[in-house]
Amino acid sequence: MDSQRPNDVPLPHPLAPLSEPEFCRARDAVIKLRGPDEAMFFRSLYLEEPPKAEMIPFLEAEHAGSLKHDTPRPRRRARAEFDVIGTSHCVFTCVIVDVETGEIVSRRTADGEAFPSFTPTEFEICERVILDSPLFKEAMASFSLPDGFRVVVDPWPYGGTAERNPRYMQGLVFAMNASHGNNDANHYAYPVPILPVVDWVTKKVIRVDRLATGGVGDDFAPPSPPGSPIKLFEKLPAAEYVPELLGEPLRDDLKPLNVVQPSGPSFTAHADGLVEWMSWRFRISFNPREGAVIHDLCYQNRPIAYRLSFSELTVPYADPREPYTRKQAFDFGDGGVGRAANNLQLGCDCLGAIHYMNAYLVTPQGSPMHACAVVCLHEEDAGVLWKHTNFRTGRAVVVRSRELVVQFICTLANYEYVFAYKLDLAGGVTLETRATGIVSVVAIDEGKRSDYGNVVSPGVLAQNHQHIFCARIDPAIDSYRPGDTCVVIEESRSVDIDPDKNPCGNAYSISRETVAAARWVDKEPRLNRTLRFESTVKRNDVSGNPVGYRLVAPATQLLLAAEDGVQARRAPFARHDAWVTGFRDGEFWPAGEFTNQSHCESGGVEAMVRRADRFVDGGGSSPVVWSVYGLTHNPRVEDWPVMPVETYQLHLRPADFFTKNPALNVPSTRNDSSVLVSCCDSQANGDKGNQEAAMKESALSHRQGSGRGVDAEQAGAHVRD
Amino acid sequence: MDSQRPNDVPLPHPLAPLSEPEFCRARDAVIKLRGPDEAMFFRSLYLEEPPKAEMIPFLEAEHAGSLKHDTPRPRRRARAEFDVIGTSHCVFTCVIVDVETGEIVSRRTADGEAFPSFTPTEFEICERVILDSPLFKEAMASFSLPDGFRVVVDPWPYGGTAERNPRYMQGLVFAMNASHGNNDANHYAYPVPILPVVDWVTKKVIRVDRLATGGVGDDFAPPSPPGSPIKLFEKLPAAEYVPELLGEPLRDDLKPLNVVQPSGPSFTAHADGLVEWMSWRFRISFNPREGAVIHDLCYQNRPIAYRLSFSELTVPYADPREPYTRKQAFDFGDGGVGRAANNLQLGCDCLGAIHYMNAYLVTPQGSPMHACAVVCLHEEDAGVLWKHTNFRTGRAVVVRSRELVVQFICTLANYEYVFAYKLDLAGGVTLETRATGIVSVVAIDEGKRSDYGNVVSPGVLAQNHQHIFCARIDPAIDSYRPGDTCVVIEESRSVDIDPDKNPCGNAYSISRETVAAARWVDKEPRLNRTLRFESTVKRNDVSGNPVGYRLVAPATQLLLAAEDGVQARRAPFARHDAWVTGFRDGEFWPAGEFTNQSHCESGGVEAMVRRADRFVDGGGSSPVVWSVYGLTHNPRVEDWPVMPVETYQLHLRPADFFTKNPALNVPSTRNDSSVLVSCCDSQANGDKGNQEAAMKESALSHRQGSGRGVDAEQAGAHVRD
Repeated sequence: MDSQRPNDVPLPHPLAPLSEPEFCRARDAVIKLRGPDEAMFFRSLYLEEPPKAEMIPFLEAEHAGSLKHDTPRPRRRARAEFDVIGTSHCVFTCVIVDVETGEIVSRRTADGEAFPSFTPTEFEICERVILDSPLFKEAMASFSLPDGFRVVVDPWPYGGTAERNPRYMQGLVFAMNASHGNNDANHYAYPVPILPVVDWVTKKVIRVDRLATGGVGDDFAPPSPPGSPIKLFEKLPAAEYVPELLGEPLRDDLKPLNVVQPSGPSFTAHADGLVEWMSWRFRISFNPREGAVIHDLCYQNRPIAYRLSFSELTVPYADPREPYTRKQAFDFGDGGVGRAANNLQLGCDCLGAIHYMNAYLVTPQGSPMHACAVVCLHEEDAGVLWKHTNFRTGRAVVVRSRELVVQFICTLANYEYVFAYKLDLAGGVTLETRATGIVSVVAIDEGKRSDYGNVVSPGVLAQNHQHIFCARIDPAIDSYRPGDTCVVIEESRSVDIDPDKNPCGNAYSISRETVAAARWVDKEPRLNRTLRFESTVKRNDVSGNPVGYRLVAPATQLLLAAEDGVQARRAPFARHDAWVTGFRDGEFWPAGEFTNQSHCESGGVEAMVRRADRFVDGGGSSPVVWSVYGLTHNPRVEDWPVMPVETYQLHLRPADFFTKNPALNVPSTRNDSSVLVSCCDSQANGDKGNQEAAMKESALSHRQGSGRGVDAEQAGAHVRD
Repeated sequence: MDSQRPNDVPLPHPLAPLSEPEFCRARDAVIKLRGPDEAMFFRSLYLEEPPKAEMIPFLEAEHAGSLKHDTPRPRRRARAEFDVIGTSHCVFTCVIVDVETGEIVSRRTADGEAFPSFTPTEFEICERVILDSPLFKEAMASFSLPDGFRVVVDPWPYGGTAERNPRYMQGLVFAMNASHGNNDANHYAYPVPILPVVDWVTKKVIRVDRLATGGVGDDFAPPSPPGSPIKLFEKLPAAEYVPELLGEPLRDDLKPLNVVQPSGPSFTAHADGLVEWMSWRFRISFNPREGAVIHDLCYQNRPIAYRLSFSELTVPYADPREPYTRKQAFDFGDGGVGRAANNLQLGCDCLGAIHYMNAYLVTPQGSPMHACAVVCLHEEDAGVLWKHTNFRTGRAVVVRSRELVVQFICTLANYEYVFAYKLDLAGGVTLETRATGIVSVVAIDEGKRSDYGNVVSPGVLAQNHQHIFCARIDPAIDSYRPGDTCVVIEESRSVDIDPDKNPCGNAYSISRETVAAARWVDKEPRLNRTLRFESTVKRNDVSGNPVGYRLVAPATQLLLAAEDGVQARRAPFARHDAWVTGFRDGEFWPAGEFTNQSHCESGGVEAMVRRADRFVDGGGSSPVVWSVYGLTHNPRVEDWPVMPVETYQLHLRPADFFTKNPALNVPSTRNDSSVLVSCCDSQANGDKGNQEAAMKESALSHRQGSGRGVDAEQAGAHVRD
């Protein structure tokens, strides 16, 4: 315990985000590491999560209500990632700082081939470097743009290549119609077929690749040699999405739908990230790479998960023409979805009673930068949760589903992801991902079509691609202790007819296999293969089965890129549906810590599985599950210019964790704010009257407990003379 | 045209439900068919949908706005299903009646082995027959029930057996604690291990099967012979779900969440089933077997589907012990989800501005029976629909998703299904199924466990089972005409590295195969196998591809029952993920018209595929797609006593049907009714102040178009002395 802290100042929770003083103390400690003639460029600075072994006794005391001022607690530490830049070197460095003492606990530097995540600042620098480059200007001179158009460059990671390179960035080049003076004109409608490459250390354009623009039959045709300037975009239509540029009125037939919570929300949010809602209690943290993370998820004070996060996402493009083969982003490892998180505007992204969380990011100088409203909390109605109507009495009991949503949205240049954790009233957890934004496009000669994508606008090719995500689940079923939680693979299997055991062929069997050592597990819908998280020490009082949760995750297509190609070698995680690995502190990244310009995975799930940690027979490891899901995105014209969301959900559902439906005691209260809508063509004594009579009848039968559509009284004897 | 109808009375739409006079005219025509000494028992009476060939010119005229009073229109017809009961016969009969003239257009009787759907009346009769039966009373005498308990019987279809039987029903027997005088006490907590069998014609219990109650090791042990009465349920706990019997207070921490639509709903519902919402226009009908059906679904007056319906559902149980092998329900064919539809109570099943539709069912005597509020229409907010933030300017444009929901809920004895069609703003359609209600249970000796299910309460075994559903999709892509719509199987496939065509291995290929003849198609997530509905005559102006829709339907487990067993033979539809068959009028039932006590499918999708209708090369057939999905339900303790919903969704999504995102012109209006929630522990100048400052900043940046979480201004140069 820090002897300098007076007893009456509450200690921060070990998982609470760094306070501003803590942040600055860490920064100050790091700055001292700078040598003469060295500069520093900060990339991230945030709470280093305490070792799990130290957290467990703390959490046990916390949940037992026995936490005292002198309970041993993990040290408060910060993780700082930065470059140390000298006249002849630039060394990426990661240090852990004790924020109470300012002591540097550990210091690690990356080798020359491990490139850290880009920050938004670097994207801006990259665009500026390209626009100012003589080489780039020369390349642009091969084209003439319509009057009032200007050039815009979207920086991209350089992707993966077979050869080893210094640190590069590349830029997708577009033109923007600036003639109307609106900086939100959509430049993606006007792709320019060149691709400048920037050396990130020298900050120079080293070459400008020219892009093929052919279609079926001449896809691979080399670009025409520069001659007289090629006139671009003369006839191409705009693809605007900001309302004032749409050129058509917005529709006015969608009436307002308001979510009103007259008594306020049902949740309580604490300043240090603790959230309580119904029987749930958990903590939210936020970091530059993963965005919002859920910690210590408990229901009725019983732990379910130690940590839940969205952990990686790779987006490989399927156009085989150089240099498009380099289009493969790792949005967490190459950039970071936390850094790219949107300010969630009140009433724009969500409805109802909304709580917003802020976070600190870091400026290049190491100062705390206020990231405003990057996470929101709100409740949503989610339809019927359970219902039963007694067909004899007509009495219906119906409970609506309410969900607590923890949401963040990030923008990665052209594209958006909406990530949400949703908790429900029946002990369920949903991890939801929505993909939206603007598809990545390149130029195609007008009138041509391509096997590598779809023409979504004249001259604009949206290349086929995939988004392969990975959610990380660190389960803690009714206990935080290592060895108390195991992973079981359950399958439901057909059984042959057997005169004794299955005479009619209707039986099926449920097979169970405890995962003994680190491995991957593919989905198999035909077997209903399901991962279960189960206690090894506690059983359900009613069923006698281990208390547990099921992971319900629909099967999706995995990575299509050839196994022996660089895309696949960089993202082995994307080649299987789930991975079960042995827990290690700080191991959060399924494609490894450094994905930027990687040639192959290093330290990701494949490496973790190779370690062959054992979970049973005294192996002592705690299993962590990495659940992989993907969207194969062969673009539709409807995805242009901004695509409607594609949604994926995975669910954690209690399976003999409770001794009954935990939502049984949720009130089935009648909602008095709902109103009746009649037919448009109802007349005074017509349909409206009928509807009102029906509703009166309905209200009456509700009181009397009649929930059926037919009147049982009328059911009588046969017609007979 | 009916010459007796004056010109100024609007003619009913051919798809409008029967009016009361039409209903009665049909009934009167049917009654006349009764011979002397014969009685009639009506099962259903509803609109017979006109032949598609007659509908097409009518719909074309309707959508062209050229409909006139004298436009040729299909005759208004009714379908009546009833038994003709004489002293020595009971013949199920189906007639088609011209409701304008009263003429019997066709008459069909079922053979002795085709048993029609049960009606709720028959379930009531069956229970009464059992309770009054001496054989049953004798069987019950082997047991003694606690004081105040009484016997309740849930009638069930007899399922499928290898032997041919007369028409039977069976009853699951329970005891209800009637001591507190509440008829909504949950009898499913007390299963009695006998199963009476009723001959449906003689209305007599013909035998009472005794049920094994053993567990692992003695599952198949025969029931103990009757001796002194066995005392049942002495120590078993109740399993109540109605609030007043719960024995614990309802939770009071869930605050109200109201959906308020101050300007009313955005949809218009007409009395004859026509609905208009945003750019959608369609019709809803309702029948006893399928419940709510969608017809003539158009967007911007362009047809997408001729008809959408939920068409069948089989629930096979996996307990191999006789007589449980007979537990296999077909909830559409054995009963009918329309007949079982709930009265949807205002403000209980839905929120917001709700329109309810009523329907007519038929009394046994043939009279119209008002089924009140069996379908509801309302709008729901569904989160972010599309968003893009310009990372340079920070300007965010976000549009929320609104869905129009057409919902009905049915109760089949213990169990509930919530069926919904949801239309969205981006041209998408979702068919959603939620399963809830009370799982079917049988008795197990206390303290034992079983391989055939889970003990969800002491002495109560919830048997493993599946729910395999089938949705029927009759697509009409931009045209109603036969031959204008085809089905294409699309797959995304890996491509090997090839020095010329795929040097880096990142390419994948999209394969397309037009379905040439009727067949089944299984899902294959690894290939992203997708069915597309495409026009054979119209292409997208932008992409040049056929205009079309994609069917997005996640893979689920199919029927597990052994192929050569009676469960599987009755439900071949449940053994493949999708079936493509040639359209025939009136062919709505994937397991055949008569499922009750069937031995094998007759006239279902397997038979339709055997017909080998061809869709190409002048084959002339229109494809209908039957999309199959299932829930393998190995019950959890949390499913007791009423289970939280398990949800499945399938989607129809435009794929090059439109020339851009159809939701582009939806306003991204700020919702002013949303409110800010501060931290619970915020102080006067603490978090609340920060939050308010943040929101002010947020509001400001919204006006200025800043949607990013980080302040780009702060991103500057390196730290250097």
